Amino acid sequence: MLNETAMKPSYELFYWPGISGRGEFVRLSLEWAKAPYREVTREPNGMDEMFAFLRGKRPGALPFAPPFLKHGALVVAHVANILAYLGPRLRLVPAAERARVEAHELELTITDIVAEVHDTHHPISVSQYYEDQTDVAKLRAASFTKERIPKYLGYFERVLERGDGKHLVGRKRSYVDLSMFHLVAGLRYSFPKAMKRVTPKIPKLARLHDAVEGDARLAAYLASPRRLAFNEHDLFRRYPELDG
Amino acid sequence: MLNETAMKPSYELFYWPGISGRGEFVRLSLEWAKAPYREVTREPNGMDEMFAFLRGKRPGALPFAPPFLKHGALVVAHVANILAYLGPRLRLVPAAERARVEAHELELTITDIVAEVHDTHHPISVSQYYEDQTDVAKLRAASFTKERIPKYLGYFERVLERGDGKHLVGRKRSYVDLSMFHLVAGLRYSFPKAMKRVTPKIPKLARLHDAVEGDARLAAYLASPRRLAFNEHDLFRRYPELDG
Repeated sequence: MLNETAMKPSYELFYWPGISGRGEFVRLSLEWAKAPYREVTREPNGMDEMFAFLRGKRPGALPFAPPFLKHGALVVAHVANILAYLGPRLRLVPAAERARVEAHELELTITDIVAEVHDTHHPISVSQYYEDQTDVAKLRAASFTKERIPKYLGYFERVLERGDGKHLVGRKRSYVDLSMFHLVAGLRYSFPKAMKRVTPKIPKLARLHDAVEGDARLAAYLASPRRLAFNEHDLFRRYPELDG
Repeated sequence: MLNETAMKPSYELFYWPGISGRGEFVRLSLEWAKAPYREVTREPNGMDEMFAFLRGKRPGALPFAPPFLKHGALVVAHVANILAYLGPRLRLVPAAERARVEAHELELTITDIVAEVHDTHHPISVSQYYEDQTDVAKLRAASFTKERIPKYLGYFERVLERGDGKHLVGRKRSYVDLSMFHLVAGLRYSFPKAMKRVTPKIPKLARLHDAVEGDARLAAYLASPRRLAFNEHDLFRRYPELDG
């Protein structure tokens, strides 16, 4: 959350404007922690600045793709890597190495299912329109909704069962909980029928989604225009033909 | 490398037997560092032991899938996470946080292209045979070889150009260099024609591959039966119909 009267925020987030996308996983943690940050592409000339990084015109690590975060001289890309970096700084992961490694492991599994979500609507090529790969998308989405959603969410439910039942890592809110909230929300948006079928099998995960949605630290953000609605240019898309 | 007369090795690697697969990225770092480790599924009852972890019958973090590494009480899954954990311990990444974050970022980009390699032969479902999704595989592989290989490898070439030209991170061998060697080797195995087309555009990357292949620290391993040959049950498969 950028306080306009504050000093220049130390975190600068670069991501495509107009979609929540993969950037949202980073945004949720920054917002929960009330960390001042700039959303660069929502400012004038922000897109030029993002492309300057992607084209190698800026110092620091070369990002392969958005989202990436700039913090001082550090440029860090990949959602899970950004969150592993931010986690201790935002107090959104326990300090012990073991907990950080386990949190990152879960975030990387979220990364994997997110990539599979993307491939349900772009199973052949990211450079072709959805409309030109719809038939294949139906096949891929059938496998995703029937096999992959139950497998992934069943796994996360088991992780909750092995812990305190309410948090994916340790006994406090972590960035993984926040990411899980957005994953479940996105899956419910994209695949409402498939999610209805799986919901009875993931009671703890559903409660975690609700707990994060009701977390007082996120209320202002979730009610703000900064929290973009899902849409069909985004990662999570609602195409009824892909939901069985 | 397991020295049979040594103490019980502290690192235990769990991965499917008979394929180099994603496990190879971990193996290369362990072997380069000459770290004692057990390859659990190559031992009697090793598969039972791996499934005990996957089924949640063992303490520690629940792995979603192999490969995973056990080190003392820690169970760590996801190749890039394992390498981020091992990197400082094996002296295969600079100690500074910035270098570690940048190394991890590159390894996660390798993870992404590896997932796309997998999807060239399994574009619809991991639970169906390749022979049942060959037509779609041809479409996906055409996009992968024409667009994605040049994009990813061109990116890694630029990363080398921004550094010392010989190392992806810093000025010494890192686990990212070792992973890059295996990625290039795998792509050359799977897509010889596509790789021949792109090779003139990635001279530094090609030299890095050759440098790692000739690295004296890897010679014994690469000549050993522990280094499995690529095959068509593996991640990198040679199907001529997918190579344009």
